Amino acid sequence: MEKKILIETSARHVHVTKETLETLFGKGAELHNKKDLSQPGQFACEEKVTLVGPKGQTTASILGPCRPADQVELSLTDARALGVSVPVRESGDIAGTPGLKLVGPAGEVTMKEGAIAAKRHIHMTPEDAAFFGVSDKQIVSVKANTGRSLIFGDVVVRVSPKFALAMHIDTDESNAAAALGTVYGEIVK
Amino acid sequence: MEKKILIETSARHVHVTKETLETLFGKGAELHNKKDLSQPGQFACEEKVTLVGPKGQTTASILGPCRPADQVELSLTDARALGVSVPVRESGDIAGTPGLKLVGPAGEVTMKEGAIAAKRHIHMTPEDAAFFGVSDKQIVSVKANTGRSLIFGDVVVRVSPKFALAMHIDTDESNAAAALGTVYGEIVK
Repeated sequence: MEKKILIETSARHVHVTKETLETLFGKGAELHNKKDLSQPGQFACEEKVTLVGPKGQTTASILGPCRPADQVELSLTDARALGVSVPVRESGDIAGTPGLKLVGPAGEVTMKEGAIAAKRHIHMTPEDAAFFGVSDKQIVSVKANTGRSLIFGDVVVRVSPKFALAMHIDTDESNAAAALGTVYGEIVK
Repeated sequence: MEKKILIETSARHVHVTKETLETLFGKGAELHNKKDLSQPGQFACEEKVTLVGPKGQTTASILGPCRPADQVELSLTDARALGVSVPVRESGDIAGTPGLKLVGPAGEVTMKEGAIAAKRHIHMTPEDAAFFGVSDKQIVSVKANTGRSLIFGDVVVRVSPKFALAMHIDTDESNAAAALGTVYGEIVK
């Protein structure tokens, strides 16, 4: 086992409740798996929605399965184009964040909250955490050896036996590092 | 004097030759200063052009004064939206880079080359260089104490008595650091 961590880029995406899914895609609608993601059980869906903000709109894929709350994860570049000011938050921590309008083929949903820029993070198992000498919620730095070398500070470690080892960054962060192709980082604490 | 360096974000922009300016805006056209930039003699112009790539188009301001060659500086997010693959280069180093079509109110110019993502850099005077203990073309790292802390590697130092002390990053890099408002960095070498 090596001390390297796969760095994956998350493009803007949406998590939806079952209720929102049915409003957007029709009664009885289900998500269709287009591609499995690195985290076990998570998948990119065939279903796309239009995100509408005060200044613009764009499309985003839904990631499945359904969740207990609607959440839109944007880069700060996306947020600016849509005209919303989103905080950098961990997934699920959406209290007080702005909402967006989601438009699907069968209807639309105006979110009260849930638009964030995801705080960069590393998913890992308890065994990975022991190997790296880190713990759940610990903040570390990660050096990316990419086209534009960077050390990302403020990276939160998330530990669960349900996870697989991977660091997630957004498209701004990926482009700032010129992280093209398969890239790896190392924890420098 | 402090060891801190102002970090400025450069949005996508265009440098044009006098000839290109006249093609885009008409015979005898001149640039109109909208706002002085930090570097002495450089200014953002009232004039905007449309950048047209294989997959999309967008607008960008011209920065004056005119230069010996046309050059478009994009973020990698911009480049992806336009459908061009641009290298990370220092300003002026455009050999073998892709071109774009520039469209103005009076005409258009198809660039043979000149679209780049600007390599992050620090402008400084010889006195600044002596103070920081660095030299022209040296590669350093800069720690940004921002909303999302980052250490930028691969930062090139550019020294000239015509410069003023400032680090320039693009919008992806700025967003990756959540560099909102007036932010500073320090050289960590």
